[in-house]
Amino acid sequence: MKKVYMDYAASTPVDKEVLDEMLPFFDKYYGNASSIHSFGVDAFNAVEEARERVAKIIGAKNDEIIFTAGGTESDNIAIKGVAFKNREKKGSKGYNIITCSIEHPAVLVTCKYLDNIGYKAKFLPVDRYGIVNLDELEKSISKDTFLITIMFANNEIGTIEPIQEIGKIAKKHNVLFHTDAVQAIGKVPIDINNLNIDLLSISSHKIYGPKGVGALYIRKGIKLETIAHGGGHEKGIRSGTYNTPGIVGLGKACELGFKRMDNDVLQMTKLRDILIKKVLEIEESYLNGHPTQRLANNAHFRFTAIEGESLNMLLNDAGIASATGSACSSKKLQASHVLTGIGLIQELAHGSLRLSLGRKSTKEEVEYVCNTIPGIVKKLRDMSPLWNR
Amino acid sequence: MKKVYMDYAASTPVDKEVLDEMLPFFDKYYGNASSIHSFGVDAFNAVEEARERVAKIIGAKNDEIIFTAGGTESDNIAIKGVAFKNREKKGSKGYNIITCSIEHPAVLVTCKYLDNIGYKAKFLPVDRYGIVNLDELEKSISKDTFLITIMFANNEIGTIEPIQEIGKIAKKHNVLFHTDAVQAIGKVPIDINNLNIDLLSISSHKIYGPKGVGALYIRKGIKLETIAHGGGHEKGIRSGTYNTPGIVGLGKACELGFKRMDNDVLQMTKLRDILIKKVLEIEESYLNGHPTQRLANNAHFRFTAIEGESLNMLLNDAGIASATGSACSSKKLQASHVLTGIGLIQELAHGSLRLSLGRKSTKEEVEYVCNTIPGIVKKLRDMSPLWNR
Repeated sequence: MKKVYMDYAASTPVDKEVLDEMLPFFDKYYGNASSIHSFGVDAFNAVEEARERVAKIIGAKNDEIIFTAGGTESDNIAIKGVAFKNREKKGSKGYNIITCSIEHPAVLVTCKYLDNIGYKAKFLPVDRYGIVNLDELEKSISKDTFLITIMFANNEIGTIEPIQEIGKIAKKHNVLFHTDAVQAIGKVPIDINNLNIDLLSISSHKIYGPKGVGALYIRKGIKLETIAHGGGHEKGIRSGTYNTPGIVGLGKACELGFKRMDNDVLQMTKLRDILIKKVLEIEESYLNGHPTQRLANNAHFRFTAIEGESLNMLLNDAGIASATGSACSSKKLQASHVLTGIGLIQELAHGSLRLSLGRKSTKEEVEYVCNTIPGIVKKLRDMSPLWNR
Repeated sequence: MKKVYMDYAASTPVDKEVLDEMLPFFDKYYGNASSIHSFGVDAFNAVEEARERVAKIIGAKNDEIIFTAGGTESDNIAIKGVAFKNREKKGSKGYNIITCSIEHPAVLVTCKYLDNIGYKAKFLPVDRYGIVNLDELEKSISKDTFLITIMFANNEIGTIEPIQEIGKIAKKHNVLFHTDAVQAIGKVPIDINNLNIDLLSISSHKIYGPKGVGALYIRKGIKLETIAHGGGHEKGIRSGTYNTPGIVGLGKACELGFKRMDNDVLQMTKLRDILIKKVLEIEESYLNGHPTQRLANNAHFRFTAIEGESLNMLLNDAGIASATGSACSSKKLQASHVLTGIGLIQELAHGSLRLSLGRKSTKEEVEYVCNTIPGIVKKLRDMSPLWNR
């Protein structure tokens, strides 16, 4: 059967060039990067070269990058690291951390955890497109606010947040600004200085690098409390033996992402727009997320009287890999917090479909998907008691 | 130049069979294991097969294994996860956590951190061989003790702790028992039920698997507080997208480790004993660690009037990769806490050399090392003001 992968937002294949660079570090340059012998030095040098490549994609300095096990760990280290350093403010009045209601669980659950243990977290509402309310953001800042954490682009509906404006507000009030840029890297040009970003999370497997590795940008001078205790790697912030092949892969993926960004974005936007145009020809189908301020690879729909799980299952039967929302919540039964966050009632939130494109997506694939969806939607509606036409 | 790797305790090359199993998961079965489509299901099934393989090497059930980013994270999750669940006991009298003075930093620093934030940690002394004092262990247990964490085998001097006795004591007093088994896995048969172990940390890259992945055994029924917040993976204990290739690699490494253990141990013991015998022929050279209760692959020496760093550098110049102690502390200047822990004065602790063997070590390599060391030791002593012969 024809197989069409349209879930690049959940994970991407490792690029051949990336894998080729990684391979020697499994069984040839296998030293521990902290060892002082030549095997260690080979690994150390590779780690540092990767650091430079990661730094470059966001305009950072090499020593402002630390390596982690992925986006979730980067978010955890950034938010808890800053929060625990600000322990003295704990329990004070005001909303100490400001985030928004449609963040990735790595941010959302971390902020809820901190709120539970004595910090205060404010979860800003977003509009129907998923854009955070800037007035409310600024009004929420008090003298006790030490961190704003707002995602660069939403992982479900693809909305790109007004990061420049948020950065300005954060700077004006002297509050640290962290952003989970896991979905934006390689799809949106990012300059951390221009955008006033203080901390930024990166995941490798969303940008054609390997799973199990990520990075965190930490602006020089910002002190974080250690979250992962141990041998003192990464300036004591994140202990654990360097995952040399993974780090090398992330570095190469960043290099390629930087080089190919314009082409990738152009090509994906073209395909995405065909996808959106065709799918919206289906009766009572709607686009979720912002019409223009959205990721080049994201198309997110809802269909009246359709159960998203069933739609995705039938698409899978037709060889198409799609999603209802994020991968990590795909086995849960609750409606997505992102979709309820943009104001959808449960029924509509459940009838959703995310199609996310990638570097290897083709026009033929898009056409196949566009030709397949209408029939499946009709089939499901014919069975649905909610569809009375 | 001939290159001889004798630092298998710091890291191992990925076994060819392991790498072969991992490869398809980079660019063929690249789905997110949490996705419900076929790409996700392929990844999910691979993760679950790996879980079974990891469980088998320690006699656990599949659902008692969670995957992590490595040994350090496993230790952090085990110790803090239990400690935070026992928050109500915080600040009470007695030594709430009992560990020992020669633990790996992932355990030692974590316990010190907990001690700093209101828990009580007792660091048991060890004897001159590195064996923890069982009487003192039992005497240290109070009604407030909730966790004993003692390593299975020491990463520097190779001493194997009396795990069975510790397990008995822990069970008798109804205290949880965690062990960092990073160095022991694949070299010592481990049955968590027979040994009364409740939590056990595993690292992949010490057993011919890839770096950046590990596992934690958690006995059924033990509740841990979440340390890594996010999408709720691994029963909510460790969030983050599954590192499918890494996990597959760890699984295969465990399978091979289990299958080859007897052969590996036999072969490494033979080579280790040659190494020890030959090196000890050097005047005023001594073996650190226990003469018999030690890892099959570990030979750890000290030499009067020798600076360990210099010895290791000159060995490196001769193509031999060795270590003074652990890799993660190899760029620090302090004497190893393990060597001072077994009672060595600073000068002697600094004159140390760890040679650790692996599955691929050969008799020729051992002979080369044995023939090289005496000349280097002589050369260094000839330059040393402390050596007056």
